[in-house]
Amino acid sequence: MPRYALKIQYDGTNYVGYQVQDNGLSIQEVLERALRRIAKVSSTTRVANTVSGRTDAGVHALGQVVHVDFPYEIPSEGLRRGLNSILDDSIRVVAVACVSNTFHARYDAISKTYRYIVDLNDFPNPFTRLYTLHHPYPIEIARIEEAIQAVKGTHDFTSFCSTKTQQEDKVRTVTEAAIVYQEDANHLIFTFSGNGFLYNMVRILVGTLLQIGDGIRPVSDMERLLQVRDRNLAGPTAKPEGLFLVEVVYPENIFK
Amino acid sequence: MPRYALKIQYDGTNYVGYQVQDNGLSIQEVLERALRRIAKVSSTTRVANTVSGRTDAGVHALGQVVHVDFPYEIPSEGLRRGLNSILDDSIRVVAVACVSNTFHARYDAISKTYRYIVDLNDFPNPFTRLYTLHHPYPIEIARIEEAIQAVKGTHDFTSFCSTKTQQEDKVRTVTEAAIVYQEDANHLIFTFSGNGFLYNMVRILVGTLLQIGDGIRPVSDMERLLQVRDRNLAGPTAKPEGLFLVEVVYPENIFK
Repeated sequence: MPRYALKIQYDGTNYVGYQVQDNGLSIQEVLERALRRIAKVSSTTRVANTVSGRTDAGVHALGQVVHVDFPYEIPSEGLRRGLNSILDDSIRVVAVACVSNTFHARYDAISKTYRYIVDLNDFPNPFTRLYTLHHPYPIEIARIEEAIQAVKGTHDFTSFCSTKTQQEDKVRTVTEAAIVYQEDANHLIFTFSGNGFLYNMVRILVGTLLQIGDGIRPVSDMERLLQVRDRNLAGPTAKPEGLFLVEVVYPENIFK
Repeated sequence: MPRYALKIQYDGTNYVGYQVQDNGLSIQEVLERALRRIAKVSSTTRVANTVSGRTDAGVHALGQVVHVDFPYEIPSEGLRRGLNSILDDSIRVVAVACVSNTFHARYDAISKTYRYIVDLNDFPNPFTRLYTLHHPYPIEIARIEEAIQAVKGTHDFTSFCSTKTQQEDKVRTVTEAAIVYQEDANHLIFTFSGNGFLYNMVRILVGTLLQIGDGIRPVSDMERLLQVRDRNLAGPTAKPEGLFLVEVVYPENIFK
């Protein structure tokens, strides 16, 4: 069976998350339905597919990657157009590439980039409310800029991982951790890149860094939290709607 | 009764339009409910209010203006914050100013600016789908740039006005009519300013100009259509979701 890699974007607002679940509609379910329709297979036949990593309910993606084992050969551009014609406008296939059967969307990913957007306006912007966390409190950005430096590098991120995870190894390498203030929109944009992220890691990092910006925690707290390895001592998990999976990087540039 | 001018923004997606209607929730209804709650008057008492002009279902606003006769004096900033605390996040009061009792949101408006955004991507962008018209066809922007020049000036806009209007005088002055191509998003942005706009005027102008860009109509058609004064000869009414009321200008800068 030929294998295809799909690069997809989605507005996660109206979904229960990427992965199929009982309690509502998931991105994966909608995608699988469209794949079955193009493959002309029955609703009980699965078109095997694997995502680079799940995203939670309400989380968005600009460059999620999924690999699909399609029952027959199909031109990549035809698959892309076919899927987009069927899919709801909240999901878009940006690119499709035929890849080798050894390519694996999850195992082969060497780096991921996430963005988290915070709306600092006193009342939420109607046009970005579904894509930002509203945080209308006086904030010292310089404190966050200083604190975020500690995130970079290889650390045990136990303090920044949901206790609901089964993942044993909590060591990850973060290659980029930065914050930019966008003056025109009055938005704060966090960017994190690394070789892997634990469950809720970006959202807990943001929740904690915002408390440092608010002056609730000392700037030195990030270093301390990395050492104590205790989720209870870190800040809250920031809401999902501000989070975007921006990019998944593989050794080869599969989408030329 | 003191009079207040409100500058408001709204995402029109989930509303039947600005004006109160029987078939669903309107911006005005939500705003009136919030005004009554702050004024502490019963649900049968009306807090008199007048808008600069209605917007249709699905149309958005960045700077709509409403004047309100509030039953008692209240600090402008208190009224703004109070309303925003009650209103849904899809509506935001950007500014409130106490104005003279002779100020009238509709009659005093000397100019309005509208923006219309067109998404030229082959499949709609999930994050702008509610705020753009999707138009995935090859388009010659230079043709639109040339044709749009004819719109500027004082004309009888009968060809660009819905036949459902009761407005007799169809002469309006358009002071700005421009188009910009935004390369990063692959969006086309129309801007129109003028002393007043007829019912559906901006949407019919855009619908017609897009046909000129598509090569369906000659570039010279705008001039001809202004002369023939026949709605049937112009293009379709472009969908509401791409339209934004950007600004309403008054002789005095009421929101300093």
